[in-house]
Amino acid sequence: MTHLLSLNEARLVLRDLHRGGGSIGSVHTLGALHEGHARVIELAAKENDHVVVSVYPNKAQLAPGTRYAYDLDRDLALASASGATHVIHATDDEMYPPDYGTFLDQGEKTKRLDGTVVPFLFRGMITMCIRWISFVRPTRTYWGLKDIGQTLLVRRAVTDLMIDTEIREVPCVRYRSGIPISSRLLKLDRGALEEIASVHRALEAARTAVAAGERRSDVVLARAREELRLRTFRLCYAKLAEPAELTEPERVPDRGGLIVHFVVTNGVINHFDGFLLRTDEDIEKGPPTIWLEQRFPGDAA
Amino acid sequence: MTHLLSLNEARLVLRDLHRGGGSIGSVHTLGALHEGHARVIELAAKENDHVVVSVYPNKAQLAPGTRYAYDLDRDLALASASGATHVIHATDDEMYPPDYGTFLDQGEKTKRLDGTVVPFLFRGMITMCIRWISFVRPTRTYWGLKDIGQTLLVRRAVTDLMIDTEIREVPCVRYRSGIPISSRLLKLDRGALEEIASVHRALEAARTAVAAGERRSDVVLARAREELRLRTFRLCYAKLAEPAELTEPERVPDRGGLIVHFVVTNGVINHFDGFLLRTDEDIEKGPPTIWLEQRFPGDAA
Repeated sequence: MTHLLSLNEARLVLRDLHRGGGSIGSVHTLGALHEGHARVIELAAKENDHVVVSVYPNKAQLAPGTRYAYDLDRDLALASASGATHVIHATDDEMYPPDYGTFLDQGEKTKRLDGTVVPFLFRGMITMCIRWISFVRPTRTYWGLKDIGQTLLVRRAVTDLMIDTEIREVPCVRYRSGIPISSRLLKLDRGALEEIASVHRALEAARTAVAAGERRSDVVLARAREELRLRTFRLCYAKLAEPAELTEPERVPDRGGLIVHFVVTNGVINHFDGFLLRTDEDIEKGPPTIWLEQRFPGDAA
Repeated sequence: MTHLLSLNEARLVLRDLHRGGGSIGSVHTLGALHEGHARVIELAAKENDHVVVSVYPNKAQLAPGTRYAYDLDRDLALASASGATHVIHATDDEMYPPDYGTFLDQGEKTKRLDGTVVPFLFRGMITMCIRWISFVRPTRTYWGLKDIGQTLLVRRAVTDLMIDTEIREVPCVRYRSGIPISSRLLKLDRGALEEIASVHRALEAARTAVAAGERRSDVVLARAREELRLRTFRLCYAKLAEPAELTEPERVPDRGGLIVHFVVTNGVINHFDGFLLRTDEDIEKGPPTIWLEQRFPGDAA
């Protein structure tokens, strides 16, 4: 595996990769890689000749002053073991020089879902995703459905900006308890993790209600909220949304798919979890999911 | 020359071009090609194996309801004669499907220069430029300095979005009278053209004043305005600006270059003209310019 230490170095290597003609898969991360990233990188490695992974904790999508803790050596080792052929590591100075000044504007959509809780999130996030895609010019680019809004908005931006790449959606990776894998959750104690697990049960309850024929969004969400067992966390929102504009219809749409999305917070960590239900089968059986062996983070495999 | 009738067709052909490994130059137009476009395409043909020209009258940068008149057959013939190897022609339906929803946001800069007269102009314009660059992925992309703001903002966006292409600036193409070539001016009568020519003399007067050591922006502009001979047109603005943020400093900056920019209007046509003076030599001798033989549009060569 090649570790590229600057954008300028990476630019030359990427030109060579493109000249060589092999397919390129890309995975773009904030660092602090975990089993979820590993599964995404593994899929990219299975489907492409080269796998380019970027590691950069994008300051434009983190709360001001946040230091995103990650161990680059550990990230490099995990990326390499998962099949990455090239890892690009960038710094704030490279990514946001003083004269930096271009952001994507996707309008009202970016104020919905996650954007109602963290208003600046999507703008900085989607701009950075597109910057990485523009830089790497991958044949296929891999996005995890842990972050439904991000994946849908990246897909929209790629289509609108006429970038010739295939967006590959990777199912959410979950522990047996239903908790999605996320670096933010690793420090929580078991009690807090039990709270987080109840969010997944709430998503399941919403899905089951829709599968049983309920069409009133408020009734579906009320049914879902009954499953929540929050103590140190509180509910920020529970939403049913449609995937195109991320609006919240009063009735479950008959077509076009459905998002069930919850955010809870303990004042420090905002935990986002959701289902993207594209098909009747997703509604009947649950969305595609990659299940880990362990029941909780930190359990032995 | 290959004429590509849809984006889907063009996407496949572009993949082949990239696979082939030759260099690609791109020129992006609104249609109604003229001698100015020809010079840009010729330069692209001189420097690249393939030259991709796009013809699309971008509705997001035209006044609502405007019909941009162009003759596609004429445009194809001119592009081909100038060295284009591929011409892509797109329609509103392809470029702005109903769910289209991504624009570039470059902040306050886009409200300056041309943006003070046509507030929506830069947003729709620069987004479209970047869409075409993202689509074609040229080795080099060619932008005329008739449109100084566009070229500078495209350069900024390409850098910020980490797109690996070289921006090639092509000097403004002017008639001997100083009038820049522009499809908008072709229908004007000789009297109106004399008015337009006085704008170029005003730019020259500003440059000469700066070359003579004047540093007060208001004095430079007052000197320039004395050259204007407007009758059916009126002055919208006369500005000195710096090229990075397009702000208007009270004093001519000692470094970083200088823009002299005028807009006049007759209520139907907004005529933009300017100098981008990057170096002391540009200030001494005038900016690089491609001079036509004719004194006025419509004159025999």
